[in-house]
Amino acid sequence: MGEETALHSLRREYAAMPPVAAMQVRVEGMEGGRLRLSAPLAANVNDKGTAFGGSLVSLMTLAGWGLVAMRLERAGVAAEVYVADSQVRYLAPLRSDLHASAALDEGQSWDEFLRTLAQRGRARVQLRAEVALPEGGVAATLSGRFVALAKEAPAPG
Amino acid sequence: MGEETALHSLRREYAAMPPVAAMQVRVEGMEGGRLRLSAPLAANVNDKGTAFGGSLVSLMTLAGWGLVAMRLERAGVAAEVYVADSQVRYLAPLRSDLHASAALDEGQSWDEFLRTLAQRGRARVQLRAEVALPEGGVAATLSGRFVALAKEAPAPG
Repeated sequence: MGEETALHSLRREYAAMPPVAAMQVRVEGMEGGRLRLSAPLAANVNDKGTAFGGSLVSLMTLAGWGLVAMRLERAGVAAEVYVADSQVRYLAPLRSDLHASAALDEGQSWDEFLRTLAQRGRARVQLRAEVALPEGGVAATLSGRFVALAKEAPAPG
Repeated sequence: MGEETALHSLRREYAAMPPVAAMQVRVEGMEGGRLRLSAPLAANVNDKGTAFGGSLVSLMTLAGWGLVAMRLERAGVAAEVYVADSQVRYLAPLRSDLHASAALDEGQSWDEFLRTLAQRGRARVQLRAEVALPEGGVAATLSGRFVALAKEAPAPG
């Protein structure tokens, strides 16, 4: 499946989740192996006029989840994707729209992930995500493990 | 300041944050040093009919943030509260409303936190939060550090 079709599926999946719709998440696209998402500050602002910490981590988690879901869809693999754990660092306040991206962490491989999933019906992959600051640098980073569980193939019949 | 007044302030602060209002967060109250929050599944559901990971971490982060904000307000200290980092583990899918609570982590002390804040204008505290499963056990846990920065007192005029 092509990238555009997988991005289209992802947009539909995000739109179907009420908390994601409330955040007004936009799928910006793929660029060099990174999935890019954005969300307006107005829908994600806290009491201090900066981006709400929960929205920062939600957007980074969604970017990671979406990257894995897209990779599976493009490989033609039917599997559910779950976030297993994450470490989040909040580094600087963000006073503008949220731009998050996610990519494979160092030493991780999609080929190995897909091979393990095909062999064992279950595989995990470590991703890194971040929210950029408009002036350069990052507002927050996330390092997280995502797990895919293969859906059972329907019995031939 | 009394607990009820501080809970009332907290409800007002949460309601003023659009992403928190969208999650329909409710302040349930304080119980044995724990701040309890809840949110309906319908506003926080993912593509699998279970609680969205971003909502789980948002609710746990809000419980921690709210606990620190209340403690400061009850002590009569004007300070901003920020989350600095967090480690989140997603342990089991949750198919019902979200109930989160936060409390001091082991070895942490409010007295020490308030004393440090008064002396240095800045202090941090480590909290633990969790989202309960209705059948017992937990759906997710968060361990996070929260930082308070004293607001400068107005110059005597």
